[in-house]
Amino acid sequence: MFTKQEKIKFRHIDYAGIVFYPRFLEMLNDLVEDWFEEALNRPFAKMHETSGIPTVDLKIQFKNAARLGEVLTKKLWVKDLGFASMLCGFQFFNETGLTVLEGEVTLVNVSINPDKKGIKAEPFSEEMKEKISNYMLPS
Amino acid sequence: MFTKQEKIKFRHIDYAGIVFYPRFLEMLNDLVEDWFEEALNRPFAKMHETSGIPTVDLKIQFKNAARLGEVLTKKLWVKDLGFASMLCGFQFFNETGLTVLEGEVTLVNVSINPDKKGIKAEPFSEEMKEKISNYMLPS
Amino acid sequence: MFTKQEKIKFRHIDYAGIVFYPRFLEMLNDLVEDWFEEALNRPFAKMHETSGIPTVDLKIQFKNAARLGEVLTKKLWVKDLGFASMLCGFQFFNETGLTVLEGEVTLVNVSINPDKKGIKAEPFSEEMKEKISNYMLPS
Amino acid sequence: MFTKQEKIKFRHIDYAGIVFYPRFLEMLNDLVEDWFEEALNRPFAKMHETSGIPTVDLKIQFKNAARLGEVLTKKLWVKDLGFASMLCGFQFFNETGLTVLEGEVTLVNVSINPDKKGIKAEPFSEEMKEKISNYMLPS
Repeated sequence: MFTKQEKIKFRHIDYAGIVFYPRFLEMLNDLVEDWFEEALNRPFAKMHETSGIPTVDLKIQFKNAARLGEVLTKKLWVKDLGFASMLCGFQFFNETGLTVLEGEVTLVNVSINPDKKGIKAEPFSEEMKEKISNYMLPS
Repeated sequence: MFTKQEKIKFRHIDYAGIVFYPRFLEMLNDLVEDWFEEALNRPFAKMHETSGIPTVDLKIQFKNAARLGEVLTKKLWVKDLGFASMLCGFQFFNETGLTVLEGEVTLVNVSINPDKKGIKAEPFSEEMKEKISNYMLPS
Repeated sequence: MFTKQEKIKFRHIDYAGIVFYPRFLEMLNDLVEDWFEEALNRPFAKMHETSGIPTVDLKIQFKNAARLGEVLTKKLWVKDLGFASMLCGFQFFNETGLTVLEGEVTLVNVSINPDKKGIKAEPFSEEMKEKISNYMLPS
Repeated sequence: MFTKQEKIKFRHIDYAGIVFYPRFLEMLNDLVEDWFEEALNRPFAKMHETSGIPTVDLKIQFKNAARLGEVLTKKLWVKDLGFASMLCGFQFFNETGLTVLEGEVTLVNVSINPDKKGIKAEPFSEEMKEKISNYMLPS
């Protein structure tokens, strides 16, 4: 599993003193971004000139609130790898081991035209498939 | 169905020129907020002093990209109404009638202690139930 | 003066129950964006393919807090118009007439290379200058 | 000077491929938050129950664009320390040593009523003044 930590900052929390849930999705996007750069050798800075990895399906359950100053552990793994898409599982824990949220997300590999108007699915390369497979867990 | 429109602004879009998906969740939160204020007579400005309506479960499918300047139509309805929670369906369309995204979200009615430390589920009042029921669609 | 209204939403406010100040800058960016589209006939959706209007200097004073549910009136005007840049004043009021914030911002007209690597200042067209001048106030 | 590093993520950048400027203010807020926690022994998680440190004045010059994947060095220091407020200077650099932005911000020490309705300026404690003074630079 790919694992990163993130500290809850003032900008994440809402009037109720807990993380505003769209901010969790930003944290999830950061996690995918870090995974692509650190583990799959596809830093977004390079990738986004000609391709992308849009989210097409997302399921998420919010189990426990997260508060200012807490450090979350974010985990990501692969549940299914297709031709041009993959299904990833994810889970965020807090410092006491409680699950803050969990879910799954489908990412699609796409190529983007230089004019940014055309987006189409593109099969993963063999090299990418191999690297992604390292994060596959038996379901 | 409760319906609002929202125009895609520069702050919503990413490097690829399309809406960054956590921004769609902010748009969804705005939709729920508008529904509570305009249709259910529970403006967030009042409600959040002593209670809240956190999102505990979210499923969302991103069908078509949305671009800068487009005006989206956002629709929300009720699929199931429980004691202290409800399941809502939602759908965002663009101006050509294409579905941009659709999904469902579970909201829980909670009371919040003045110290903001304790959050617990609280049954909807009869008045709220009646108002919510007006937005229920046969599934 | 160019004038728009914006309602404070849940996503704008912080733990203290007031607008988190980077959100005010998003509201200011929306104001500039609306001005370009509605008054200067340069919608960002078209402009950003080949050019842009980056902010290079910003001065802002936060005078009074803004709270959830309040409707702010946002005003923008031109204080100085140069070759390829302009200095704009802005002020946000709340419903009781109190100034929430005020300041000035310098915007530069630029062209952007298709590869998005090169950005350089570009003089305003005569047509643009004329339209911008309509919003100039004696300082 | 208090110094932190921050990597430009996908969520920071806009259609032009550069950091959207309100995101820089979020980075600045993070810097102040880290300074309070790591250097001044006032973590926001504790402080914001009864007090706060709102921004009342901000001047910022954007010198060079910042792009996806770059690591910025953020520096903060104290230019003037008053009874209940301080003037801080800040500067962000990129990896080649170029200044991305610089400016100054005035922060006010306030106490907040438990009902979150009353905010009033409150003198810094002697202990805080001493700690803040460690970051004072001759202007």
